[in-house]
Amino acid sequence: MHSTMRQALLAGLAMGLLGNAVAADLKPEEQIQTRQAGYRFMSWNMGKIKANLEGDYSQPQVQAAAEAIAGIANSGMGALYGPGTDQDIGDVKTRVKPELFTNQKEVGEVAVAFIEAANTIAETAQLGDKAEVKAAFNELGQSCKGCHDKFRKD
Amino acid sequence: MHSTMRQALLAGLAMGLLGNAVAADLKPEEQIQTRQAGYRFMSWNMGKIKANLEGDYSQPQVQAAAEAIAGIANSGMGALYGPGTDQDIGDVKTRVKPELFTNQKEVGEVAVAFIEAANTIAETAQLGDKAEVKAAFNELGQSCKGCHDKFRKD
Repeated sequence: MHSTMRQALLAGLAMGLLGNAVAADLKPEEQIQTRQAGYRFMSWNMGKIKANLEGDYSQPQVQAAAEAIAGIANSGMGALYGPGTDQDIGDVKTRVKPELFTNQKEVGEVAVAFIEAANTIAETAQLGDKAEVKAAFNELGQSCKGCHDKFRKD
Repeated sequence: MHSTMRQALLAGLAMGLLGNAVAADLKPEEQIQTRQAGYRFMSWNMGKIKANLEGDYSQPQVQAAAEAIAGIANSGMGALYGPGTDQDIGDVKTRVKPELFTNQKEVGEVAVAFIEAANTIAETAQLGDKAEVKAAFNELGQSCKGCHDKFRKD
């Protein structure tokens, strides 16, 4: 696929723009909880990959973890940043910075970098070469950090 | 793959038995929060598939949602039911029934049914036939309900 088209498709996926039934039925506080659920679940799977890279390497476990991350990354989480989700709602707290809702170009860039890194580790994990998975894992971690640094409060 | 082998592999995945670095570094309350995060994220994606089946059908969105569910389902969530996660821990509440920790055979059965249904809808969603996806979606919903009825409090 042509690189520009691919980027546009990924950006569309990232922003939840494909299809119209994305988060319409979730209240703002549920959108915050759902996006945090996605990040929490990915974090657990990042931890598993890290533990495998630092210790005994289980290819099936790493592949399963990488595919969970890629599945979540590709699910259109951008739809979970709807109107009203830019600040705490009662007990539902968010660390998102206001810039995420105004700087669409940069958000698209970090989102595409994240999705591409997630897809790369999912593909790499199938082959089972620990060194390649380690490189893909580091790149994925950088893509997480890239968004946190710009769009998440400390 | 031989059906019995496949079942054993799925059960292993479901129970988080493949590899040794599964949830060792998560406290019991974090295990509860992480499994709930997985269910919440899957629930959002179930809702998206349902909305697509009931309205305009976006094949890329349904496929992405189904792959998110399958990725989570295959990630070894059994590891998030470790010792100490059978009851509320402070503010972290759980609706799990004690039977889940004692009835390994039935847990394995509902887990395998769930993973197989998740994989089926992920495969079916690629082909894009709405009627087939609807059937796979209903089967997946039944597999969710099968576990809730047995192992989740009201």
